[in-house]
Amino acid sequence: MQDRYFSLHPAQRSAARELYLSVKDLPLICPHGHVDPQLFADPDYQFGSPVDLLIIPDHYVFRMLYSQGIALDELGIPPSKSPPRKRGDLPGRAESDHREIWRLVCANWHLFRATPTGIWLRDELADVFGISLKLNRENADAIYDAIDEKLQSDPFRPRALYERFNIEVLATTDAATDRLEGHQAIRDSGWAGRIIPTFRPDAVVNIAGADWRENIDLLSEVAGEAVSDFASYIRALEERRAFFKTMGATATDHAALTAYTEFLNYSEADSIFQRALKGEATAKDAARFTGHMLIEMARMSSEDGLVMQLHIGSWRDHNWQIYADYGRDMGADIPIGSEFTKNLKPLLDQCGNRRDMTLVLFNLDETTYSRELAPLAGHYPILRLGPPWWFFDSWLGMTRFLDAVVETAGIYNLAGFNDDTRAYPSIPARHDVWRRVCADWLAGQIVRGFIDEEDAFEMIRALAYDLAKQTYRLDG
Amino acid sequence: MQDRYFSLHPAQRSAARELYLSVKDLPLICPHGHVDPQLFADPDYQFGSPVDLLIIPDHYVFRMLYSQGIALDELGIPPSKSPPRKRGDLPGRAESDHREIWRLVCANWHLFRATPTGIWLRDELADVFGISLKLNRENADAIYDAIDEKLQSDPFRPRALYERFNIEVLATTDAATDRLEGHQAIRDSGWAGRIIPTFRPDAVVNIAGADWRENIDLLSEVAGEAVSDFASYIRALEERRAFFKTMGATATDHAALTAYTEFLNYSEADSIFQRALKGEATAKDAARFTGHMLIEMARMSSEDGLVMQLHIGSWRDHNWQIYADYGRDMGADIPIGSEFTKNLKPLLDQCGNRRDMTLVLFNLDETTYSRELAPLAGHYPILRLGPPWWFFDSWLGMTRFLDAVVETAGIYNLAGFNDDTRAYPSIPARHDVWRRVCADWLAGQIVRGFIDEEDAFEMIRALAYDLAKQTYRLDG
Amino acid sequence: MQDRYFSLHPAQRSAARELYLSVKDLPLICPHGHVDPQLFADPDYQFGSPVDLLIIPDHYVFRMLYSQGIALDELGIPPSKSPPRKRGDLPGRAESDHREIWRLVCANWHLFRATPTGIWLRDELADVFGISLKLNRENADAIYDAIDEKLQSDPFRPRALYERFNIEVLATTDAATDRLEGHQAIRDSGWAGRIIPTFRPDAVVNIAGADWRENIDLLSEVAGEAVSDFASYIRALEERRAFFKTMGATATDHAALTAYTEFLNYSEADSIFQRALKGEATAKDAARFTGHMLIEMARMSSEDGLVMQLHIGSWRDHNWQIYADYGRDMGADIPIGSEFTKNLKPLLDQCGNRRDMTLVLFNLDETTYSRELAPLAGHYPILRLGPPWWFFDSWLGMTRFLDAVVETAGIYNLAGFNDDTRAYPSIPARHDVWRRVCADWLAGQIVRGFIDEEDAFEMIRALAYDLAKQTYRLDG
Repeated sequence: MQDRYFSLHPAQRSAARELYLSVKDLPLICPHGHVDPQLFADPDYQFGSPVDLLIIPDHYVFRMLYSQGIALDELGIPPSKSPPRKRGDLPGRAESDHREIWRLVCANWHLFRATPTGIWLRDELADVFGISLKLNRENADAIYDAIDEKLQSDPFRPRALYERFNIEVLATTDAATDRLEGHQAIRDSGWAGRIIPTFRPDAVVNIAGADWRENIDLLSEVAGEAVSDFASYIRALEERRAFFKTMGATATDHAALTAYTEFLNYSEADSIFQRALKGEATAKDAARFTGHMLIEMARMSSEDGLVMQLHIGSWRDHNWQIYADYGRDMGADIPIGSEFTKNLKPLLDQCGNRRDMTLVLFNLDETTYSRELAPLAGHYPILRLGPPWWFFDSWLGMTRFLDAVVETAGIYNLAGFNDDTRAYPSIPARHDVWRRVCADWLAGQIVRGFIDEEDAFEMIRALAYDLAKQTYRLDG
Repeated sequence: MQDRYFSLHPAQRSAARELYLSVKDLPLICPHGHVDPQLFADPDYQFGSPVDLLIIPDHYVFRMLYSQGIALDELGIPPSKSPPRKRGDLPGRAESDHREIWRLVCANWHLFRATPTGIWLRDELADVFGISLKLNRENADAIYDAIDEKLQSDPFRPRALYERFNIEVLATTDAATDRLEGHQAIRDSGWAGRIIPTFRPDAVVNIAGADWRENIDLLSEVAGEAVSDFASYIRALEERRAFFKTMGATATDHAALTAYTEFLNYSEADSIFQRALKGEATAKDAARFTGHMLIEMARMSSEDGLVMQLHIGSWRDHNWQIYADYGRDMGADIPIGSEFTKNLKPLLDQCGNRRDMTLVLFNLDETTYSRELAPLAGHYPILRLGPPWWFFDSWLGMTRFLDAVVETAGIYNLAGFNDDTRAYPSIPARHDVWRRVCADWLAGQIVRGFIDEEDAFEMIRALAYDLAKQTYRLDG
Repeated sequence: MQDRYFSLHPAQRSAARELYLSVKDLPLICPHGHVDPQLFADPDYQFGSPVDLLIIPDHYVFRMLYSQGIALDELGIPPSKSPPRKRGDLPGRAESDHREIWRLVCANWHLFRATPTGIWLRDELADVFGISLKLNRENADAIYDAIDEKLQSDPFRPRALYERFNIEVLATTDAATDRLEGHQAIRDSGWAGRIIPTFRPDAVVNIAGADWRENIDLLSEVAGEAVSDFASYIRALEERRAFFKTMGATATDHAALTAYTEFLNYSEADSIFQRALKGEATAKDAARFTGHMLIEMARMSSEDGLVMQLHIGSWRDHNWQIYADYGRDMGADIPIGSEFTKNLKPLLDQCGNRRDMTLVLFNLDETTYSRELAPLAGHYPILRLGPPWWFFDSWLGMTRFLDAVVETAGIYNLAGFNDDTRAYPSIPARHDVWRRVCADWLAGQIVRGFIDEEDAFEMIRALAYDLAKQTYRLDG
């Protein structure tokens, strides 16, 4: 299905195909994601069973099955090993027969009809594993066996797939306190792949987090800076950023429930920090501290050149019982409405007009696209818009994004694509959907006379490759 | 116009037609609506004049005419018979010449161009009454006479239409205090049609309602339980639910301005209830009480198996003058923004993970579709999404709904269709639009390669029939 | 490109073309905009250089260039001459070589690919200036010279263009304190063009404005009414409205951050007014005063018949540094979310049911279209919906608007089109896009069977011409 997903009208379809083919073989730029660097540290890394690879780590998959009454235990999801202690019953023992799990998943695969998860897996099976059988009850065993066999072969080692996927660079996401030993091991191995870390300080910024104090101690240790007040805290963070840069990082990443920013003077910031150290910080303290730290991080970015990413609007671990039983990232993060015009103003007042830094914005409230994000990005020099995130990393989600932002911000205030995934073998499928969406959208613009072909070929290349590379300063 | 409303491209159009034809003749499942059970209690029920049938009870029609300066009196709308007393002038006498009213409506029918009301009435006239004349000034009398003649004939009795419409089950919506005498009469008559009640306790839950105290007295009476505190109140409600079940009910329905829920302990709930009995409850009391009662109702649903419906976000009777002069449901209900992620959490904390109950969500803020509703329904086992409601029960409204929710929630977390109408003879036209929208939408998914035909035929059947029947437990 | 922008399917394209051709040559009704009346006061007015005409006054153009790191100085934007004093460094000297500026703009014109600004300028160059060269680095000089030559010729005087553009009436926007000398000069000149003022009292209503006190003194002077309390303030405003009416005004215009309205009794309003005179008004005072004045203005409209326009939701001068250095209207106004159902109720309670006045609503939050605006306009007699404003005055913005509002409000509760522009020579291009969008949208409705051709031809005429003329009472 070479023309899959494209519009039907012959002229648009043919223009889409040509545009797509012009970028289809460009290398993949992966500036934001959650692949584990250990995959590349060990040259002989093996993925385990098909269920280890495709089901257990993928909350996109098991949340949907859960929504239809299938217990996480039945899917082999292990119970949480750490606090918070669960308040409900102990979960049953996780199913350990992976073939049985696979059969259960396949018997319920109709749930994924017309969803990006369904499309990615179909494309991934076809393009990566060479399997064109439809996922259903009947084909379950045959598909399982076919994947399993491949996974044991050398071409399915992560490094081999990196080459085959034509990845140019892949950024991981790493805690501020991470010693980046996996990254060091990759470097030491002499392998030519470019795997780079991203500095994500959320766990040492969110003073309301259950393990914040613990993380501060760890920060002191790894930074070689005894963190006892706001000044030493800032120094420790700056030290870590410098370390991440030496390991190849070009960006930072920050998650917050809202985009609230507020500039605190030193004594205000330090007072909150001291209360936090004593375990006496309030919820309001936490919100203000996060708001101030976003401005601090922007300042650091304007100094050290790390591109700043901001992911806004996910209510993490909304389902307390799932969180208690299984822990984090279990498919129970639910979006809330976002606001940028008011919330981001204090940060923009400080550094919105700088030409030497970049802030990439992501969120899960599509209403902000045309109302706030595109007007902001179409004015402030530091801003770029990240691609549709999470639930919106889909054909219709991307189309709505382009429809909503390009008329106001153009395409040159966008940050291109990133796959933001843990699911390493799905990366080509995800980039392919983006490239197809952009090709089809631009083809629509051509045939209706908004742009000409010359423009469109430059634009598809920018969207597929250049903008991501340039935004994340990956030319170096 | 067999292919009406479908997309133009031949391949999509032909796929849409085939999908549509595969479900066109399936029985209609009508699990939520406002048809008066009296229509069926009397085997010889007659609808009155065309204006009695089509204009006076239909606030979709008269609100639009009113918006262009036509007074409700001119349309035969009778003044309110009950308090609240009007503050404005006495309304003029309602026009009583129905032919004149009909002429006025037809002369202004251009106002309904490209609206669902216009489309439903055109389809209804053609398919139910066999009238293909266009509604306008010139044809007014001819259409009036043709409808009038039909309405006096036997095939236009409600029971005959039930058979002709191929309705499998039709649920009405009934106050918690309703003795369901109409329903009893239908049962006693031995007629085979399945008309079932739905338990709607708003009038005894909303302690801020003008007639709440009166309704509590009525509740005491019909439940045989003297309601004097929160405990007896809950017992009375449980008794009524049990009674509704014996009369065939499979669901409850709840309306609230917001989705706010809050769990109150017994003494808090009882304190508010006592203040309400004394007429001393505050607006905040009312909001908290409603929020707690939604959780109580969810608990009862998890016990008695009645499917819970929640309709959120309509500011009722926004126009005080219309309310004062004509009463409720006069086309002046205006939507407000809705929020579910925060508001529904206390309820979901209590019972979101249950597999033995279902909560169907409706609202009038389309921004919640992709941001909150689809992610919530794509995770929590109890949740299903109701079809687009009210202003959004339209071709484009339904299309936007499918576009916004299916990629995240799939189609199997939807509740199928319900017509939610008072306008009994418009029911087939409303279901037909839904079936056509779904067929066209799935056809688009086929021809662009997202799903295959096998999937699509199963999906159209689910959307047109199975999901409604299953969600509302109508198999029994 | 006679069929530019239309959908591709032959039947829809051909219907769109026929609809478009039926209104293409109708005169332009321009009931709201920001063209300077001085253009018409002097019969020999000349526009200056291409940069004077197309770049320096157009914040749509320079905001986008600024977002990509081009300084406003480089574009010839002069620094602010008045307070507020800038807090940053003095801006550099504005570039004065207009050919160099033009080259810089052309070299960066790719930023406007797929934006309305790009499309308007292309259409304007082709249709007004007869230039079909593509805007880019290579063609910069040739285009500059071609425009420059035209601008010096008689057919490019504003009055000549008025005739050529087939404008029937053009409304400017004028401060309440404006003596309308330009308008008087036009009248005195005996020229037949119809240029009318619009009464915009924001500067004397917004008590938080830096120059409010100064404007009140000016109001006293021009109204011949010493403004010392709320009563004399209201009398002065009424006097000014009467004066604007004698000068041809048919409408007023009001901008506010939110649609908040609140009815204050006289002593409340006067207390706030007195505090404002003393410079002691709070931010809350300002919000309440604006909210009350909207109701006062609605009352005046119901008395003097001036159509009331309300523009909501733009956070003006969001970038303090740009404001400090360059002043207002510098492309840094950013939308915020809007709410109408609650906010507008106090105003609608007072006059929502009147049939003798019209309130036209505009805002920058597309979520309000289907949720609030269409339901409100589909009920209240005084309401009409203005066309998509500012960032949404675009092909996709207009299409989303029609998709979102027509099913609920029909087209007869819309106010047609207005171009809302300072950029006089872009007026035909802007109206042309609207007429094409409407033609294409209605063609889609025809070919899918929602409306018939007879309806569509009446609707396109209404949208292109009649509704604007009628809404703004321009028949007189």
